[in-house]
Amino acid sequence: MTASEKIWTAGLVVIGDEILSGRTHDKNIAQVASWLQVQGIRLSEVRVVPDVMERIVEAVNALREGYDYLFTTGGIGPTHDDITVDAVAQALGVNVIVHPEAREMLENYYSSRDMELTEARLRMARVPEGAELIPNRMSGAPGIKYGKVHLMAGVPHITAGMLDALTGTLEGGAPLLTETVGCWTAESEVADVLREVEKAHQNCQIGSYPFFREGRVGANFVVRSTSEDNLRSAVDTLCEALGEEGFDFTPGGI
Amino acid sequence: MTASEKIWTAGLVVIGDEILSGRTHDKNIAQVASWLQVQGIRLSEVRVVPDVMERIVEAVNALREGYDYLFTTGGIGPTHDDITVDAVAQALGVNVIVHPEAREMLENYYSSRDMELTEARLRMARVPEGAELIPNRMSGAPGIKYGKVHLMAGVPHITAGMLDALTGTLEGGAPLLTETVGCWTAESEVADVLREVEKAHQNCQIGSYPFFREGRVGANFVVRSTSEDNLRSAVDTLCEALGEEGFDFTPGGI
Repeated sequence: MTASEKIWTAGLVVIGDEILSGRTHDKNIAQVASWLQVQGIRLSEVRVVPDVMERIVEAVNALREGYDYLFTTGGIGPTHDDITVDAVAQALGVNVIVHPEAREMLENYYSSRDMELTEARLRMARVPEGAELIPNRMSGAPGIKYGKVHLMAGVPHITAGMLDALTGTLEGGAPLLTETVGCWTAESEVADVLREVEKAHQNCQIGSYPFFREGRVGANFVVRSTSEDNLRSAVDTLCEALGEEGFDFTPGGI
Repeated sequence: MTASEKIWTAGLVVIGDEILSGRTHDKNIAQVASWLQVQGIRLSEVRVVPDVMERIVEAVNALREGYDYLFTTGGIGPTHDDITVDAVAQALGVNVIVHPEAREMLENYYSSRDMELTEARLRMARVPEGAELIPNRMSGAPGIKYGKVHLMAGVPHITAGMLDALTGTLEGGAPLLTETVGCWTAESEVADVLREVEKAHQNCQIGSYPFFREGRVGANFVVRSTSEDNLRSAVDTLCEALGEEGFDFTPGGI
């Protein structure tokens, strides 16, 4: 691997009792993962932790040490259970301050709606000292960036706006390319083929995802590589091998 | 807290590149969380890790030491990327064997469908030595139970079948009860009320989940407690306080 082929990695901490109770189905893992993929950054680990200070601090410290980037979702709103800023500041060993620009954003947002900037709302202007803001066009409250650490909202469409604002600003590597080959067969029928094709192609991973549809079993085989040539070659070999086995397969996936 | 009020906890390791690439939206976190809640067990942490041996071993060891129960989803199928059994056996320090009963289940399943029990399919009978099986009525392959550790499928409806089979077999505490109060107001308007009501009621947590619907902002306030009396009292106090503030609220949630 040359220096230019460095693999950029990220960790994600999903913060919130509502995910761990099953009340809310998380949408941020898939959203952040897909977005990172396009930036050429690989999501390497996710931890979901409750709204408990020490648990957030612990997860933030573990993942920011292990990966190039760290993202968090959840816990940056105005209520008493929103403690992400305090936890991250503690993990970073810095104070929490009110960011003047964030305060201004909130003042503008609420005054344009004839609403008051209460003490609770002002909580959303608090950041770890030294942090920058991530603009958010969906609501007044910004996300927060402190070096490699990015604090984002829990509400998925607000997080989407923050990711938009970050698009193209993070250094990444070659995006991971994927191609899917679908096959009307039990994955167990072609396990050997998959293993051999993967082994024969450097820098390619093949994932196998079975499904049951229209009364038949099938599987999608997802080939991943950062090299377009390697990906092409692996997909061609896989299609050829599946064809030889006489299965009903589709290069574009089913 | 008396001995009878022990809080039973669980960790969940979600295994799979497809979740970390954003290709597949995880459904198992919410499913396992809701099921555990009914068993009186609290899901306390989730880690999502790739199909990489050391990473699975590390997560399994961290969470099985931290909590009363450990669950994993994913990576117990027939293909080369299914390495959960090997990883968990390594974490437990035991060998991998073919479980005779699992072999029999697979033999019956495939012979009844005029299919062969190939080497790949036989992989699904491999278990950490000393493990029991978790029956699965959806497909031939069973889940695996080794003491406090439970290995389940990645495909959500197969996991559902395995959870069904485990229902009522795990010792738990009082289930966490929840009640939701909905309110057509910005959560930032009532942040003080929420904090005060939570503070005044032992063993109650109040979560605040904002939404934007029909052109209006609102929030659901979810009150959680293992004590029905405390829950009742907190909900009543909250409704009273919200009523005094003149908001348009609904005890049953919106």
